[in-house]
Amino acid sequence: MRSPQAQAARNGETPSPHHHHPHRFPTPPFHSTVSVQKLRRFNSLIFFFRLASFSFSLASSVFMLTNSRGSNSPRWYDFDAFRFVFAANAIVAVYSLFEMVASVWEISRGATLFPEILQVWFDFGHDQVFAYLLLSADSAGTALAKALKRIDTCTASNGFCVQADIAIALGFAGFLFLGFSSLLSGFRVVCFIINGSRFHL
Amino acid sequence: MRSPQAQAARNGETPSPHHHHPHRFPTPPFHSTVSVQKLRRFNSLIFFFRLASFSFSLASSVFMLTNSRGSNSPRWYDFDAFRFVFAANAIVAVYSLFEMVASVWEISRGATLFPEILQVWFDFGHDQVFAYLLLSADSAGTALAKALKRIDTCTASNGFCVQADIAIALGFAGFLFLGFSSLLSGFRVVCFIINGSRFHL
Repeated sequence: MRSPQAQAARNGETPSPHHHHPHRFPTPPFHSTVSVQKLRRFNSLIFFFRLASFSFSLASSVFMLTNSRGSNSPRWYDFDAFRFVFAANAIVAVYSLFEMVASVWEISRGATLFPEILQVWFDFGHDQVFAYLLLSADSAGTALAKALKRIDTCTASNGFCVQADIAIALGFAGFLFLGFSSLLSGFRVVCFIINGSRFHL
Repeated sequence: MRSPQAQAARNGETPSPHHHHPHRFPTPPFHSTVSVQKLRRFNSLIFFFRLASFSFSLASSVFMLTNSRGSNSPRWYDFDAFRFVFAANAIVAVYSLFEMVASVWEISRGATLFPEILQVWFDFGHDQVFAYLLLSADSAGTALAKALKRIDTCTASNGFCVQADIAIALGFAGFLFLGFSSLLSGFRVVCFIINGSRFHL
């Protein structure tokens, strides 16, 4: 591994022991090794959040989708709010899968999938909108699940309510990780606005 | 009203016809007239959004609070989700009132109520959190209102359900304007990070 000084010298700068964090380079492809390492760690963190968000949303939608127990039990698709929970979680799972691909692409090739300005705004905008969507769906599902407990649907078919509760709880976990992703992608947008590059330093 | 050139001359700069938007000044208290006017328009827009958010949230919480019609009708505080709608809207109304005071203070005195860095982050953070809170409450209220229609509570006491629906709809309107405020305060945070000042230019 090259030291930052050697890298700076290669870029035509005067090496100095107190100058480990050069802010800009005249030629875009060159960045200091420290900066590249930090970006890789940052991207790995984003990938982890995407993976967690994908797993929880997928699990939530699968739990909700398989929540039908014979003909004398209530079915999940008879309830608006449960349909909303399924749809929102499925959308977030698909989106997170796409973002995982984009993240792996960026880590392996060092370039974003879309042009950089489009990518940072796309990520941030969709994170925000889908976070609101998912929270809204999970809240609606919670309210319906509580209302069902009130009217004795749950004493008649307890398994249905437990499985719906689990699906909603998994959805909230997915929302949490989507919110973290949103923070990081918001940070990337600010870095892009300041530096004209997603490299944060 | 002074022209930007005269103002620039007063600040010790060379006046030039193509230099209407000077980006930085050496002394913080001086800004160009154009910049001050734009900031005032921006602050007025924020004030308008705060006012709308306050009005809708207050109306929503009052509608929910007064939703009790005699002893044989259901009461709003027996339902978790309706209590959540009332609480979230009351919190947002109080917060919006405070932000309106801060906004008027800033428009009239030209300085923020708190220190500038604290103010921009306080505004943005609370806008985000309260927007999620309010959306969550309104979604839960919607799901409960739909569930009540399902179990014939609403055919027995129709006025109760209509008033609850109105309260929830007003809450969604409050959420909309809180979201707009959140966009503008996010923009202010970015301006503050870039320029070290909330003056955007």
